[in-house]
Amino acid sequence: MAQQIADRRDIDFVLYEQLDVEQLFKTQKHRDLNKKMVDMVVTEARAFGIKEVLPTHSEGDRVGVRFENGKVVVPECYRRPYQLMVENEWTSLTEDPAVGGQGLPHMVMRAAGEYFIGANYAMVIYAMEGHGTGKMIELFGTEKQKELFLEKLYTAQWGGTMDLTEPQAGSDVGALITSAKPLDDGTYAITGNKIYITNGEHDLTENIIHPVLARIEGAPAGTKGISIFIVPKIWVNEDGSLGEPNDIVCTGTEEKMGLHGSATCSMSMGSKGICRGLLLGEENAGMKIMFHMMNEARLDVGFMGFCNATAAFMHAVNFARERIQGRDLADGKNAEAPSVPIIRHPDVRRMLLWMKAHVEGMRSFIYFVARCFDLAECAADESERARNDDFIALLTPLIKAYCAGRGFEVCIEAMQVHGGCGYTMDYPVEQLARDCKIASIFEGTDGIQAMDLLGRKLGMKNGAVFMDFLGEIKSIVEQAKAMDALSPMATALEAAVDQLGETAMAIGKQAMSPEFKTAFASAHPFMMAMGDVIMGWMLLWRAVIAAPKLFKIVGDAAGEKKQALLEKDKNAAFYDGQIQSARYFIRSVLPVALGRLAAVRASDDATLKISERGFGGL
Amino acid sequence: MAQQIADRRDIDFVLYEQLDVEQLFKTQKHRDLNKKMVDMVVTEARAFGIKEVLPTHSEGDRVGVRFENGKVVVPECYRRPYQLMVENEWTSLTEDPAVGGQGLPHMVMRAAGEYFIGANYAMVIYAMEGHGTGKMIELFGTEKQKELFLEKLYTAQWGGTMDLTEPQAGSDVGALITSAKPLDDGTYAITGNKIYITNGEHDLTENIIHPVLARIEGAPAGTKGISIFIVPKIWVNEDGSLGEPNDIVCTGTEEKMGLHGSATCSMSMGSKGICRGLLLGEENAGMKIMFHMMNEARLDVGFMGFCNATAAFMHAVNFARERIQGRDLADGKNAEAPSVPIIRHPDVRRMLLWMKAHVEGMRSFIYFVARCFDLAECAADESERARNDDFIALLTPLIKAYCAGRGFEVCIEAMQVHGGCGYTMDYPVEQLARDCKIASIFEGTDGIQAMDLLGRKLGMKNGAVFMDFLGEIKSIVEQAKAMDALSPMATALEAAVDQLGETAMAIGKQAMSPEFKTAFASAHPFMMAMGDVIMGWMLLWRAVIAAPKLFKIVGDAAGEKKQALLEKDKNAAFYDGQIQSARYFIRSVLPVALGRLAAVRASDDATLKISERGFGGL
Repeated sequence: MAQQIADRRDIDFVLYEQLDVEQLFKTQKHRDLNKKMVDMVVTEARAFGIKEVLPTHSEGDRVGVRFENGKVVVPECYRRPYQLMVENEWTSLTEDPAVGGQGLPHMVMRAAGEYFIGANYAMVIYAMEGHGTGKMIELFGTEKQKELFLEKLYTAQWGGTMDLTEPQAGSDVGALITSAKPLDDGTYAITGNKIYITNGEHDLTENIIHPVLARIEGAPAGTKGISIFIVPKIWVNEDGSLGEPNDIVCTGTEEKMGLHGSATCSMSMGSKGICRGLLLGEENAGMKIMFHMMNEARLDVGFMGFCNATAAFMHAVNFARERIQGRDLADGKNAEAPSVPIIRHPDVRRMLLWMKAHVEGMRSFIYFVARCFDLAECAADESERARNDDFIALLTPLIKAYCAGRGFEVCIEAMQVHGGCGYTMDYPVEQLARDCKIASIFEGTDGIQAMDLLGRKLGMKNGAVFMDFLGEIKSIVEQAKAMDALSPMATALEAAVDQLGETAMAIGKQAMSPEFKTAFASAHPFMMAMGDVIMGWMLLWRAVIAAPKLFKIVGDAAGEKKQALLEKDKNAAFYDGQIQSARYFIRSVLPVALGRLAAVRASDDATLKISERGFGGL
Repeated sequence: MAQQIADRRDIDFVLYEQLDVEQLFKTQKHRDLNKKMVDMVVTEARAFGIKEVLPTHSEGDRVGVRFENGKVVVPECYRRPYQLMVENEWTSLTEDPAVGGQGLPHMVMRAAGEYFIGANYAMVIYAMEGHGTGKMIELFGTEKQKELFLEKLYTAQWGGTMDLTEPQAGSDVGALITSAKPLDDGTYAITGNKIYITNGEHDLTENIIHPVLARIEGAPAGTKGISIFIVPKIWVNEDGSLGEPNDIVCTGTEEKMGLHGSATCSMSMGSKGICRGLLLGEENAGMKIMFHMMNEARLDVGFMGFCNATAAFMHAVNFARERIQGRDLADGKNAEAPSVPIIRHPDVRRMLLWMKAHVEGMRSFIYFVARCFDLAECAADESERARNDDFIALLTPLIKAYCAGRGFEVCIEAMQVHGGCGYTMDYPVEQLARDCKIASIFEGTDGIQAMDLLGRKLGMKNGAVFMDFLGEIKSIVEQAKAMDALSPMATALEAAVDQLGETAMAIGKQAMSPEFKTAFASAHPFMMAMGDVIMGWMLLWRAVIAAPKLFKIVGDAAGEKKQALLEKDKNAAFYDGQIQSARYFIRSVLPVALGRLAAVRASDDATLKISERGFGGL
């Protein structure tokens, strides 16, 4: 059967054959888990995604949210899957069962998540966003705050948000002017306006808990003087019962390129009455606390970019198999030759293999970082736990920006495979592209991620974390070198890793020199090239696993004989597909990344030298 | 004043300083033209675009076309600019005044066109599409057909279309099944269905003339048996008066990602009564005739991609100057430092300069091909005319696919500069992106263009046309080599030209070998790399012109002294901007194209080797 959202065989490959989720079953935390249970979770998630969420994808886009007198009405079709997500406990898979979670590994959460997010991010995010709000409260809240909010948020009985942006303060959070004034009862009166608040108001839950960044009167300027407050839409009494509506109201929703079913709200606090908030954590520690949520959100946003890409790829590959058009190129001059499925055309195959390589590379990359979370929690060795935390920090900007950027490009390429059909709303790919585009923008634009990578992450522990990461790639290179079929690819990837290291050294040094602006002007191309090298790593790693398994099935068979075996054996075709993806990527895409690295090393400063007037348009 | 659609200074640079439109005033055809007249045309076009067309951009998108009982109602706001385009005779600028044209050079037509198309392609295309229909009739029609249709189409009193695509025949036109049966009066009865017909039905004109591809009963299969017919919506009597409605009816319009104001129609012919058509040209010559229109349409589609890009770039650069956010990177740790316009941030400058280089490179490229049209018409020497015709043929797929592809990427980058604002419909960039995306798909997908380039164009006259084209680039390289400031760039571009030539040789040879499918799997990356080299050529050419002019103003001044001069002198800033664009492109973008060429030469066949099953998704 044609896969509609994600490729289950490939998910299983990553879980069991590449990243060995079963090793976690030996740890204390996951000792009660087994393969059968994991399989069941993924199977159930898939069934739920396809049966309950996917049917809302197009309808939610066409209907959109409706703003009426301060209320936001979501598409009617979202109500049932929302309730089912709550009832079936899909919203906090990795959290402690004591507070409404399922205690599953992060890798499994991603596997299940592909089927939710890829089915309809706009719908699912209503149910998932409370997790980040809950996490901050779990980490920084008082016992009372946890008691009041945690389970309700983790189980999505209440919604959560993230209230940072103001009209004059988007990427520059430190410029915010929302203020907080202490009240006699220990709470604070919040006054200000926020914009672009995802799901800031909606009618899916009886309450919404807003984490709001604000400046306590008299606090320092910039990010140092920012505190964070828990601001419920409906006040929550000490006993957990709901009190009066709080003065945080939605003043409008945005019309957007995509995500029409997701409410992007302008919020006004304290404009008519008093908007009460509870301080979360210490005064002026708002940025530090928010960054816990922000980092989680960044990983989720990259994941969203990837999920839209994998869905778009599934649509494209299925379309290419079914759409009959044009003769085989070998029959070019013979008007009587039959038309063939477009998957036979070389240019279509190029597009599909480009998509496949990126989708599968991103899947491995995302699950690898999920495994870092698992190991940071479960590894026996403390230094191993710390090492995985470091990898998470280093790779978060890459997950966010690379998967968002390439994910969008995959969606666009999927439209291209569909030809004219792809531009119409009769096919889902154009919506996947429109929805996906936001991933490069919210929770910190690509440019912000690139600055984070260059300014904070490359230099972590004096560069030791980055070197350790390169070492991980090299270990795969060494394994591949030992295999005849893969050795040329291994050599090519090794050269790319060396160039990445050399470029990182150069740009990292420059970032601390008087020419630091030149370095930062190259931060984005550097980041994207690093992402490309990571794709090469993941795809070669996959090939290292696939090659011996393929050999067991097809042996030395080549040419038509091999093709016949691949047609007969599903696993053989899959493993061969792994090797072809790696080969394609390393030989046809990686050279482009090397060009990008060469450009970064050329370190041209025209971007800085050009006068503001010289950009034209005046 | 901030430019809203296109940069007039840059248009004038290309017209007068780079491509010397004034040389045409010496030819017989344009002997009555002068600079003042050209300036006036462009100024009027700009005023018309900004005042009359631009205000319909967003409204037309939101309102969209309405399909009601076979009728298509266009957005109300389109009616006035449509009438004004007709009254002011903007629709056929290059045609003979005797048939409703203005007799202007193609270069001037492009300059004016930027302000129409960039203002709202969806609206303008209603008035411009009849030109292609008219052109075919001018070239292949009988005197009677010209008398009946030509002026009405060129003046946009009647609309025109292009009826190729059928549900089973998109890129594969030869698979069409619409049939034509000769009638006793010499006309034909057409029966069949067409889809995706731009402006197939609308209420802006009293008549619409459809050029319809169909197969006369008994004609050969494939493209060889296709004829082309003139099918009026309302029959046109011998005396030019309107007769009865013809049985060509719209059965529905498509919902699309963008171009909501443009009617994409399904058409049914002969389903109830008789749909009469006039044979245009000879029987079975339909493809040859249609290709005249198709080539014009391809150039126009590339132009549309570019026009959306230049408008998006104008919005981005103006936004970046006005949007105050974040401190200067040099003040990173100082919370008291003032926020600055985002154009000061290195990553924003990178995005803007990337956009500027591509927009300006594409402008020069498009006007260069327009000049080829002018010289093909006006050059005194016949071999020079033929040479320009050859360049048009060689470069048409590049204009179509490169400008469509990079144009879309420019729109997306413009969204990125806008941050969260760019994703909302409060700013025009997301619509420019949505509208622009179709350019890579219709009138032959990018993949089709790449096959045309590799399969037909590279080998024209045994490769002599391509070599001649490389020679054109080399002559600019030589001029740049003679200038100290540009010599390193010239050397870099020369190396790229050599690699392009070498790669073309390799892939061209492979395309005629048994491994031809491998070559065609690389046709698209080759085409895009060739486009990048063309950008380098155009930008270096611009720098060659700008460098001495800049030197005259700023002399040897450097550093802050030079910056002060650039701030003072608009021309100095412009010329310096030309050199910075060239430098940025050649040092930071061209290396990526070299990587792409290296990948093409590596000639990997994984795209062909992977089994159909191996793509996964089953």
